[in-house]
Amino acid sequence: MLVIRRAVRIEWADCDPAGIVFHPRYFEMFDTSTHHLFEAAGWKKRDLLSEFGAAGYPVVDTRARFLASAAYGDDVVIETQAAAFRHSSFDVEHKVFRLDADGERLAVEARATRVWVGAHPDDPKQVKAQPIPPILIARLSGQSEAADGG
Amino acid sequence: MLVIRRAVRIEWADCDPAGIVFHPRYFEMFDTSTHHLFEAAGWKKRDLLSEFGAAGYPVVDTRARFLASAAYGDDVVIETQAAAFRHSSFDVEHKVFRLDADGERLAVEARATRVWVGAHPDDPKQVKAQPIPPILIARLSGQSEAADGG
Amino acid sequence: MLVIRRAVRIEWADCDPAGIVFHPRYFEMFDTSTHHLFEAAGWKKRDLLSEFGAAGYPVVDTRARFLASAAYGDDVVIETQAAAFRHSSFDVEHKVFRLDADGERLAVEARATRVWVGAHPDDPKQVKAQPIPPILIARLSGQSEAADGG
Amino acid sequence: MLVIRRAVRIEWADCDPAGIVFHPRYFEMFDTSTHHLFEAAGWKKRDLLSEFGAAGYPVVDTRARFLASAAYGDDVVIETQAAAFRHSSFDVEHKVFRLDADGERLAVEARATRVWVGAHPDDPKQVKAQPIPPILIARLSGQSEAADGG
Repeated sequence: MLVIRRAVRIEWADCDPAGIVFHPRYFEMFDTSTHHLFEAAGWKKRDLLSEFGAAGYPVVDTRARFLASAAYGDDVVIETQAAAFRHSSFDVEHKVFRLDADGERLAVEARATRVWVGAHPDDPKQVKAQPIPPILIARLSGQSEAADGG
Repeated sequence: MLVIRRAVRIEWADCDPAGIVFHPRYFEMFDTSTHHLFEAAGWKKRDLLSEFGAAGYPVVDTRARFLASAAYGDDVVIETQAAAFRHSSFDVEHKVFRLDADGERLAVEARATRVWVGAHPDDPKQVKAQPIPPILIARLSGQSEAADGG
Repeated sequence: MLVIRRAVRIEWADCDPAGIVFHPRYFEMFDTSTHHLFEAAGWKKRDLLSEFGAAGYPVVDTRARFLASAAYGDDVVIETQAAAFRHSSFDVEHKVFRLDADGERLAVEARATRVWVGAHPDDPKQVKAQPIPPILIARLSGQSEAADGG
Repeated sequence: MLVIRRAVRIEWADCDPAGIVFHPRYFEMFDTSTHHLFEAAGWKKRDLLSEFGAAGYPVVDTRARFLASAAYGDDVVIETQAAAFRHSSFDVEHKVFRLDADGERLAVEARATRVWVGAHPDDPKQVKAQPIPPILIARLSGQSEAADGG
């Protein structure tokens, strides 16, 4: 699988009155990491949508377990990869490692199921699940290089 | 002028590690209040855009002064009104009053200039300033009733 | 069980470039609903923490399934209740119903496990799981009235 | 003056239904840049507060002008520097440059006044303006090196 690791500084803006990351912010970070994963596979989000005529790849199910907190000023690494592909849906896994003085500590484990959707043929305001493009699966699986930039 | 007063509970989600409202959240609240002002004038945002063929009314200049803090659990009232109209831009004023045991205390004063824009005639991906619809100015000025629902 | 239903307008500020709620915002709404549930049980968050000497009740595990989208201008109702109690952790369930012209439609189902924590006896900067106060369980279970305001 | 330039990718999470940065997010970015400026001067935020016994440096007045929009996938550079020092308050200036194919374009100009505060001597829950530490002014002015790490 194609795996990306993204260094993120935990900012004041990410934290709640307890001084630690407000957990909804992790879901923002995972969303961002997912788009970066696709970019590593060869496509920035807007290019991906236009090249394949897709409307998006919204999250339909997500779960996260918070094992250790992170506070503002902490540095973390978010590791992201696709974990499973089905006809029109796929799973993405995220792990957040907090960089402590004595090494990396797993702080969050999460998984999101996303559906590949296009405009609905009968109603342009609705979307409909579509098959995931095989080239995208191949790239995210690490079976095809993104060296040509998409 | 048409004036709206909106009761808002300050939530944990609004606050930073100091336990008080993270100031960017006030700009979110002001954006929301602006749409509510327009709804009080007769139009929900999406109806407003479709009825007048507009693309939006983005903020081009804004300023806020923070006079007193508000913490999670506090109740505030946000008072909003249009303050000036020009050919294609207008100003909206916001005041946040914190409801203390001994009365209301002014916590934030803000003003935003917004521009009424439509699709650009030469490039559908761009927007262009357009005259503000007179009926909208009349409604926001309190010179015309919104009783017919728009 | 004590159940609260909270009316929420989906705002422009909640939505992403697809025009629908950016899913992390739902987790913010669920966090807010949880505090409101506790307030319905008798305690505003800051009073709850001070009365029981607690440090908080952070989320340690959460899952949400997104069944239908909601766009800005939509009205939803968020229904929240405790779903299970263990020694020092408890589950809270949330359901988002979108109010359509033809009735309510379930848009999101979510569950969060939270842990009741106090200051760690050996390190004031750390927290430690503690037993959930029985009166809180009784109130959230609907077995005791909150009529005396806590 | 000490000037920092921070490269920021505009993310899906930053954008509204118009597909461009939701303006309150810029204020988050400016807050983050301010902390990074102080870190470049020699102190991470939490170290700064503990070393000088300060409670924070909240924004009391801010203004931003939005000259050009930025959309998700765009790359910007945020340039930040202190602009004026008074007894207990100081100004920070931010400029956002959008990196277009044909060069940098100024997208946002902003300024924030912040006050240096410590715990109030009569009420630990309140804060009180205090003189800005001279070493901090020297560092932000570029008159003293941060080479020793603070």
